[in-house]
Amino acid sequence: MKACGIIVEYNPFHNGHSYHLQQSKKQTQSDCIIAVMSGNFLQRGEPAIISKWERAKTALMGGADLIIELPYLFAVSPAPVFAKAGVRLLQALRAEALCFGSESGNIDLFYHTISQLEKQKVLYDEAFQSYSKQGYSFPKASSLAAGSLSWESEALDLSLPNNILGMEYVRAMADSHAPMEAHTIKRIGASFHEERIDAHQIASATSIRKTLNSSRKPSVSSIEGAVPSYTSEALSHYMEENGQFTTWDSLFPLLRYKLLATPAVELRKLYEVEEGLEYRLKETIRHADSFHTFMTALKTKRYTWTRLQRMCLHILNHISRPDAEAALKEGPPYVRILGMSDVGQRYLNTVKKQADLPVLTTLSRLQNPLIELEQRVSAVYFGGYPQEIITKKIKEEYSTPPLRFQRSKGQFI
Amino acid sequence: MKACGIIVEYNPFHNGHSYHLQQSKKQTQSDCIIAVMSGNFLQRGEPAIISKWERAKTALMGGADLIIELPYLFAVSPAPVFAKAGVRLLQALRAEALCFGSESGNIDLFYHTISQLEKQKVLYDEAFQSYSKQGYSFPKASSLAAGSLSWESEALDLSLPNNILGMEYVRAMADSHAPMEAHTIKRIGASFHEERIDAHQIASATSIRKTLNSSRKPSVSSIEGAVPSYTSEALSHYMEENGQFTTWDSLFPLLRYKLLATPAVELRKLYEVEEGLEYRLKETIRHADSFHTFMTALKTKRYTWTRLQRMCLHILNHISRPDAEAALKEGPPYVRILGMSDVGQRYLNTVKKQADLPVLTTLSRLQNPLIELEQRVSAVYFGGYPQEIITKKIKEEYSTPPLRFQRSKGQFI
Repeated sequence: MKACGIIVEYNPFHNGHSYHLQQSKKQTQSDCIIAVMSGNFLQRGEPAIISKWERAKTALMGGADLIIELPYLFAVSPAPVFAKAGVRLLQALRAEALCFGSESGNIDLFYHTISQLEKQKVLYDEAFQSYSKQGYSFPKASSLAAGSLSWESEALDLSLPNNILGMEYVRAMADSHAPMEAHTIKRIGASFHEERIDAHQIASATSIRKTLNSSRKPSVSSIEGAVPSYTSEALSHYMEENGQFTTWDSLFPLLRYKLLATPAVELRKLYEVEEGLEYRLKETIRHADSFHTFMTALKTKRYTWTRLQRMCLHILNHISRPDAEAALKEGPPYVRILGMSDVGQRYLNTVKKQADLPVLTTLSRLQNPLIELEQRVSAVYFGGYPQEIITKKIKEEYSTPPLRFQRSKGQFI
Repeated sequence: MKACGIIVEYNPFHNGHSYHLQQSKKQTQSDCIIAVMSGNFLQRGEPAIISKWERAKTALMGGADLIIELPYLFAVSPAPVFAKAGVRLLQALRAEALCFGSESGNIDLFYHTISQLEKQKVLYDEAFQSYSKQGYSFPKASSLAAGSLSWESEALDLSLPNNILGMEYVRAMADSHAPMEAHTIKRIGASFHEERIDAHQIASATSIRKTLNSSRKPSVSSIEGAVPSYTSEALSHYMEENGQFTTWDSLFPLLRYKLLATPAVELRKLYEVEEGLEYRLKETIRHADSFHTFMTALKTKRYTWTRLQRMCLHILNHISRPDAEAALKEGPPYVRILGMSDVGQRYLNTVKKQADLPVLTTLSRLQNPLIELEQRVSAVYFGGYPQEIITKKIKEEYSTPPLRFQRSKGQFI
């Protein structure tokens, strides 16, 4: 059996994701799709609007066969770390291909761009340092530095988010000497940052979330054209149970309490709280009535919104700097299965013995500091739920076995 | 001018407190009553149902002339620490008397009991150790040890809470060699723990709170017979602004988040989290749907409910053990005025120069680690308020000058 890996967030699963899944399978001629998916917190430093279980469900129905959780520290990280950990998990499960969506859609351009950047590394690094010293944020300094190089021929447009992420996948695969082919599929429909849904059958997840949350009472019907019916159902089910989609607004009371109650010297020990940001955080939170006003007041040229959002999540989840650095250095220590189809289960049976990381079906199966961290992080996510269902949700998180989906019948077992 | 000190919580101010104030002034023939009052968190490890500002207001209207805040660490402490700090603040302001309510009402009995306990100290200590080792809580072991001694004549009933507290006041005055006379007034009306209000004109604060919170929508009219009209008004005003009285229920979502999000090794560094309680806390909170179910599951013979409630407050307020121990050893480092009448202000002018602690009218006037702590603690209390008024409340706490009351006109200035 041949497996193709994809690395995803599905916040929420939409028609573009469905297209990516089908094309990945077709283009790589694979029998099984392994989706490495962020858990309850996402790369740009936000909570997922619905939980990982709901999202894993839609992924299985959409055609993925194995859903693997990308652990929190790797999921809530800059592109290179995110990409490297995703590739590592796919490698552990012996995926033979990785297929990602990109604005470019031309895999040769990725190889070409990486090699050009390698060749001009000294120039690039100097330019990057100089832009960085001028106070530009990491991504801005990176893209300015790339722009200052001379390019032999057409290069990737590195201002586009999925090109950047794709380049990191290709780089991570090369660095890890994983025997995996890289494939890319051109993203169709709306661009990543487009915020309107019209007659598009394919809209970005950003625009779907915007539309969902644009009215006081989020309405699933407003985005039905852009998502499969099972996503609508998952969203409706979540709304029914939770009364709201989970956003930074749901978690803001807890973040505010954390920042107000914690002494500055303790905040400073948390991951990404650097360069005296602890004082700025404590002063800013006193005047902030919402997450948005807080972030707007906190933002400077030096830090991107995303970098600050990730820091806020690490504060909320009480991630200590040494713990984070040790775990990130080590890489993901296990493969956690959130769900599988019958195809995925068959594939898993064939590769389980070759996997070079322990494969877990529940968190209780392994003693590891990262598992204690994952459990804390899950519980924090549920802090945004109605008070009366939090204990139920925490219990489920510890005890839920992977979702099992029978593809031929289109049913969960 | 002669000042008499009293040490109070006023949660809320009721007819018994009014009687205590009048009798204290009369019995000690004082011109000025100095009330040392707990801030937003109280001796038994609970938030006050209304804020210190509302309570200070009722105290001024009830006849107190200077309202001094007992800082958090001393207020949320066992009786000996609470009493010692209260006496220290009164001493700093040159009070010549201290008058407390007690079940006994006989000041000689306090002196007699203390001297008997001193004489039999070795026996007492042995008995205490032995009961303690059997797993009895501190107050239970104390009272059993006292019961095992032989008493020359009638002794104080040390099972009664105001007798115990009174003994600690008398002891603290003796230990500090404060030139202050001790007076006591027999508590009249309902006993401390009585929980019903009937036709009593004097009911305990405990029964008043129970009655207030007995219906889903707290009703101030139900307790009007037991409190002065200005207390009813303060309670109604608070309800109107806050939508609820502040209780552990208001703060439980924050405590739950704190316990779930904080690693056990970090909880262990907090004050009063001892003997492996961090693991018990983390396990118990996973199943708790309310503060009451949490506490009931946490409680063992070894720890009193009060001891555990105080620990929960220290966790909620992130009080580190070394910080707490250093501050408690040092004693209160300043005298913070929450409110004063014209009489109080005149008195303050006459003693200000003799005061051996800095006298503060706002928190911003002094650099001290305890002030940083007080500010954090205040902000945590406001975490129980509706989200939209928290920033306003935090701002007020930093900038509000002391309340000023003109006694002759019965008006605030």
